[in-house]
This record gives sequence, C-alpha cells and structure tokens, in this order.
Amino acid sequence: MKVYRYPTKEIWSDLIKRPVFEQQEISKLIADIFSEVAENGDQALMAFNRKFDQCETERLLVTEAEIENAANLMSTDLKNAIQQAKENISAFHASQRQEIQKIETTQGVTCWRENRAVEKVGIYIPGGTAPLFSTVLMLAVPANLAGCKEIVLCTPPDKNGNINPAILYAAKLCGVSLIFKTGGAQAVAAMTLGTESIPQVYKIFGPGNQFVVAAKEYAQRFGVAIDMPAGPSEVLVIADEQAIPEFCAADLLSQAEHGSDSQVIFITTNLKVLDETIVAVNQQIKALPRNGLAEKALENSSFIIVNSLEEAVEFSNLYAPEHLILAMGDFEKYVPLIQNAGSVFLGNYSCESAGDYASGTNHTLPTNTYTRNYSGVSLDSFVKKITFQHLSKEGLQNLGKTIELMADAEGLFAHKNAVSIRLQ
Amino acid sequence: MKVYRYPTKEIWSDLIKRPVFEQQEISKLIADIFSEVAENGDQALMAFNRKFDQCETERLLVTEAEIENAANLMSTDLKNAIQQAKENISAFHASQRQEIQKIETTQGVTCWRENRAVEKVGIYIPGGTAPLFSTVLMLAVPANLAGCKEIVLCTPPDKNGNINPAILYAAKLCGVSLIFKTGGAQAVAAMTLGTESIPQVYKIFGPGNQFVVAAKEYAQRFGVAIDMPAGPSEVLVIADEQAIPEFCAADLLSQAEHGSDSQVIFITTNLKVLDETIVAVNQQIKALPRNGLAEKALENSSFIIVNSLEEAVEFSNLYAPEHLILAMGDFEKYVPLIQNAGSVFLGNYSCESAGDYASGTNHTLPTNTYTRNYSGVSLDSFVKKITFQHLSKEGLQNLGKTIELMADAEGLFAHKNAVSIRLQ
Repeated sequence: MKVYRYPTKEIWSDLIKRPVFEQQEISKLIADIFSEVAENGDQALMAFNRKFDQCETERLLVTEAEIENAANLMSTDLKNAIQQAKENISAFHASQRQEIQKIETTQGVTCWRENRAVEKVGIYIPGGTAPLFSTVLMLAVPANLAGCKEIVLCTPPDKNGNINPAILYAAKLCGVSLIFKTGGAQAVAAMTLGTESIPQVYKIFGPGNQFVVAAKEYAQRFGVAIDMPAGPSEVLVIADEQAIPEFCAADLLSQAEHGSDSQVIFITTNLKVLDETIVAVNQQIKALPRNGLAEKALENSSFIIVNSLEEAVEFSNLYAPEHLILAMGDFEKYVPLIQNAGSVFLGNYSCESAGDYASGTNHTLPTNTYTRNYSGVSLDSFVKKITFQHLSKEGLQNLGKTIELMADAEGLFAHKNAVSIRLQ
Repeated sequence: MKVYRYPTKEIWSDLIKRPVFEQQEISKLIADIFSEVAENGDQALMAFNRKFDQCETERLLVTEAEIENAANLMSTDLKNAIQQAKENISAFHASQRQEIQKIETTQGVTCWRENRAVEKVGIYIPGGTAPLFSTVLMLAVPANLAGCKEIVLCTPPDKNGNINPAILYAAKLCGVSLIFKTGGAQAVAAMTLGTESIPQVYKIFGPGNQFVVAAKEYAQRFGVAIDMPAGPSEVLVIADEQAIPEFCAADLLSQAEHGSDSQVIFITTNLKVLDETIVAVNQQIKALPRNGLAEKALENSSFIIVNSLEEAVEFSNLYAPEHLILAMGDFEKYVPLIQNAGSVFLGNYSCESAGDYASGTNHTLPTNTYTRNYSGVSLDSFVKKITFQHLSKEGLQNLGKTIELMADAEGLFAHKNAVSIRLQ
C-alpha cells in the first residue's frame, strides 16, 4: 500500500502504471494444443482432461439428466437470486435494442442499419475455486436476447467429471444450447476449429488464465472474433468528504480479493477520509478468507490525496479504470467529465458487487487501459449491424453526378460506369 | 470465370472458398520497422520516405499553406461532389447516435449507458495510383461526429513530397486535426508509438497493402485497437428475371477493378439473365483502363444458376459477402432472410458505387467471411459505451440479498461484505 500526498502531474504517469507480471512464453504451447485438437478432436480433449484436470471423461457433452439434476443440488434461495439477477440483466440488455431508423440522405436515397445475431457463439467459463456462474448470466443472457442460434459453453470438469451445479443451472436458465466438459486453451481451440462433438463458433467470449487468454488471441488467426483483450481486474474509487470510509474499504477489498494481480486505487480530497479508509482496509482484511490474495494486491495499490475532485477525475481519465466508483455527494456534476472507464458506480450505495452480479449491467469489461478504446460486453457484442440502401431511379439521378466525379477522380472507371450505364 | 449450373449443396463449401494468395512472411520486417520508429522517431520516418517513396521530406507535418492550396488545385465540380457526399455520410452516421436511456431494473436501481469518444484516433490512407479521398470522408466524418479530440491522418507523399489535393481537401473539410507525410507500416508504427511530431493514438483505421495490414495487427500488442481485420474486397450479386444484365455486369466489374485478388460472385435463377450478364461483362471489360486487374479478378469469379431466390440467399449467407446486391423486383421479401453481409444494395438502381462514395453508408466493411462476426465502421467504431449505475439505499436493500447469496456461492466474501456492511 503506497500513499501519495498531492502528487504533481509530472509523476502521474508513474502512478497510472499497471504492475507488470512476468509472462511465460507460451505461444509454442498454444500452437501445439491447437494442432493436437485439430488432429485428434474429442480424443485430444479427453486426453487433456486426464492430463490437466485429473479427470476421466467418457463424453464431453453434459447430458440433459446432469442439467436437470443440477437444480436439485442448489438452494431455493440461490435459484431465486440467480433468477432476479437474470431478470435485471435481461431488462438492461434488452433496452440496448435499437429501432431500425431509415434515413433519406438525398431524395430517393434511403439508408438504414439492421441487426443480425452472430449465429454461433462460444462462452468459456473457468473452473477453479470460484465457480463463475455470474459470468454465465453476463454472456448467455445477451447472446440469447440477440438471437444467437447456437450458444456453446465450455468449462473444465472437476476430478470426478462434474461441473458446478450453479454453472449448469444458469446455463440452462439462459438458453445455452450445448455445454461441454473441457477447459483451458484446448476448449478455445475446440470452439475455434470444431471437433466431432463441439461445434465451431464465430465469436468466443469469457475470462480465463494466461493460457485461455493466449488461446483466444491465437484463435483470431482462424477467423474467430473475441470479446476483448484481457488484463487483471482493477477499481478506482474517488471519495469526497461525504464518502463513508468503511464502505470504500469494503469496495477496495472486493477488488483486491480477485487475485494478487488486481489493482486498487483510492483518491480523495479529504485527509480524514484517507486516513479512516486505510484504517478500515487494514481492519476488514483480517476477516477475509482470501486475505492472502488481497494483501498481495494491496501491495500494488495507491492511496492518493489530491486538491480537488476535478483533479481526481482527470487522474482517473488518465488511468482509465475498469471500475470507477464515485463515492461522493454531488456525483451528477462529475459524470459528464468521465472520459475513460468501463463501468461507473455512483454514490455511497452503488457498490461494485451490485454490477458484478445483479444490477443489470455487464461485468465483462475492458481493463488494463483498454477502456480508452474498447467498450464492455453488451447486446452489441452479439450482433453485427448490416447497412442497407435503396436508390430509386430518381435517387440515382440526384446522386449520380457526384458518384461519377468522385470515382473518376480516384481513377476507378468501372465504379463510374456502374452509374453512367444506369443513367443512360 | 467459372459457371456452375444448379450446384448441389455438397459442393457449396468449395464455392464459398476465397482464393488463397501466397503471403510473404513479413513479421520480422514489421517488428524491425516498429523498433526503428521507436528508436529514431521522425528521423526514421524521413529515412523510410527516402527509401520507399523516393522522397526527401524536410518536415512530416503538412502545413496550413499546403492544405489551403489544395482547394485551388481542384475543380469546383469535384469540391461540390465531395461536399454532397460529406453531407450524406454525416446525415446517416448522425442518425446512429443513441439517446441515453435510463432503466430501473429493480426499484431504486438505475442503469444506463453513455457514449464517450475514443479521444485520439489515427486514419491511414494509402498512396499509389488511386488517391482514396473517399476513405478520408468515411473515417473522418464519423470520428468528428463522435467527438474524437485528435484525428491524425498519415498518408505517403509522392516523389515530389506532395499529397494528392483531394485527400488534403477532404481531410480539412472533415475536421482532421493533423496530416503527416508518411506511409506504410512505419506510419502505423508512428501512430502506435508516437514520435516527436506524430501523436500516439488509441485506435487506428484504414486500408492498406499487406505491410500496413500486418503493422495494424502488430500494433495491437501495444494496446492500440484497430477497425477490423482486413481482406480482399468482394461482391455477391443475386439477380432474378427483373434484373438488368448490363447493370449487373457493371457492378461485377466495379468490384473486379479493385485488384486481382477481388472476388466476384453472380447468382441468378434465370438462365437468360445468366447468359446476358456474362456477355455484358465480356463486352464492358474491354473499355476499362484497369482491365488487366479486372480480368485477373474474374478468373476467380463464379457465375451460378440456382433453383430459387431462397437458395440464392442461403448461399449468400454461407459465403457472407462484404457487398451484397439484390438485383430483383421483390427484394423486401428477402431482406429479413439476410444473415451475413457487410452492406446490402437493393434493386436495380442501388449500385455498389453509390455506397462506396456518396449515399451515406460507410464503405469500410468486413470481408473474407468476417461479416459473420464483425460490423462495418460506423459511429460506434469511434466511441466507447460506458455503463453507469446508481443504487439508492432502498435499491441496495431490494437487491442486497441476491448479491450476497451469489457472491457467497462464488466464494467471494469481500464482494458479499461490500453489501453487508452497507445494509447493517
């Protein structure tokens, strides 16, 4: 934990730096996994399950019986919670639908856009200690709303060949077509190339470890699209004198527990809030089961006091955080100044975990400065927008001379002729 | 030119294949160019101008005087044409703006999205025989509408150190901030890394040769976003008995003249239209100055007769063309069936060159099957959509239990605590 008091702008460029972690050189490994999956298909995936997940898998496809049974293994409370989250995510993403708007740009020339779903999408859900069923909701709900015809989900099995029931339950609830027991880079390879049982998809979504991230990057060589570049999660909290230090501390820690590479930045204009937030962080961290991870993440965290909220927002725009919390009274005033952020949480009761799970916004967000040039996942991520145009004979007469002149000036005479021949 | 009569679906997968061209292995070369630009900045770019464009460049930045003078070198007719095209492109792209729509997903929980421009964007315009000022319009108009603060344009100078006046004129008209005399992979490197005179940007747009394409791909390693993956241009025309063969032929040739790697597909349900279109292509090609290129492209082209328009659209969806022309009477009926296409032209008077230049739609489109998973350039390409949320105390009370249950089930206790501490 580092504390900076009124840092000058000269040192901001140091403060916005993300911690750099040593990356293993794994491109050769990824290429080998893709080759293996291309050559041996399902058999390769089963062998990888044996090798990496210590699991014997007789079939990769999760059966209807397994999916039905998942509901029995879950509490009614959790099922209701998932239902409420799903409804909110559906409501917010449905509001992102756009009406078709036809524009007559010149008399007789009408242009518009129509959305079409990406027909086949793949969702990757990591295994490990935290079963990320919330990510199933965040990806399958908009895929389903968009009208994707095939929604494939891959996730690694545990040692007994099972998948966490909440993942199966959420997948079923949100209209996932097929669920497969395969994880890691090999799952990404399978959705990219297709195997006997796993269909090839056009776009792959979802988080994962460095092998999954590298595999998604590699998959693009085969014409597959991906949701966005990956990076460690991060939060920046801006607090004024109306912020509640215990709440700020809880939000900072909820980011820090994600992993030792998480980054946490706290900026305030108020010395008392600064001091009390630091005390609260040190107090609250003791009670956390994942405090080892959180402590490591906090080593890279910064607590900064600045002269004004304008300065705080200016710093935030330069840092370009994935999550931005405005823990302040007059947040409306600062919303228009926000330039680079993934998702913004306003006021003392809008904690990041609301957006992580259930408020309705998507939690798949750009990070690691990518909020400067990427949006988070939304309904848009699952559709293509196709442009349409209709020119009547009169429309082409009104526009023809312009097209002919421009085509001629670019030296493209067949382009010009396509107009001339129609106007003759 | 290959003609296929009523091909069975078994051979469709062969017919949708794009011609494969040998690619030079140039990744080492691109990496070297990036290193050179990183190390020597403007001096490196000037040296590359000397080497690749046989041009001595004293300064890279185009002066105000050069820009002012460009207008004097152009005909009033061409300036008026560019003005009309700009107005149509502006009108269509302005219609893509979305109103902010606040959604109350649970009582007291409000979510919405707001657009923010990508602050710094780069536009690459190739040199060569065809001065692509139309691409300046297609990229600078939406960048300007979106509110991008810095719009940088790079294009190679000719041997005398000049840039085509129409490029300068269009850039000035559409609000480009700075124009630089540098081309090829080194221009992409400059916009990615920044030099003494050229600002670093967050997203790079525009077409180019294989070196530019490879450089844009490489640029992404430095955190830069790009418009979309590249590929050769292509058109698919579906014609019924109401199509006019001379018009179809002109459209096919306007695609073919782009380059020897262009692909052209013609599908019809009518034998007479098939035969007459082939005759018209062979007739019209003779008059084209670029008929060498067009002839090469036509070697890879297919002329197909099928049983029904439904079958034609099904084929088109599998092929996923960049440009799709429905040269038919009853096109409204087939619009809803179109699944994969970049831009669609409806009826006998909607020639592709209308969309290439002046109707208002964007001509920067996905190709090479990428219409299955990418959209063309639009206003969206120049903004990020940031999500916002506000929870009142009551809102968090209504949603809190759901968040706590889900966080608990994922084993993320600090996430849960961020809610619990607020509800206590």
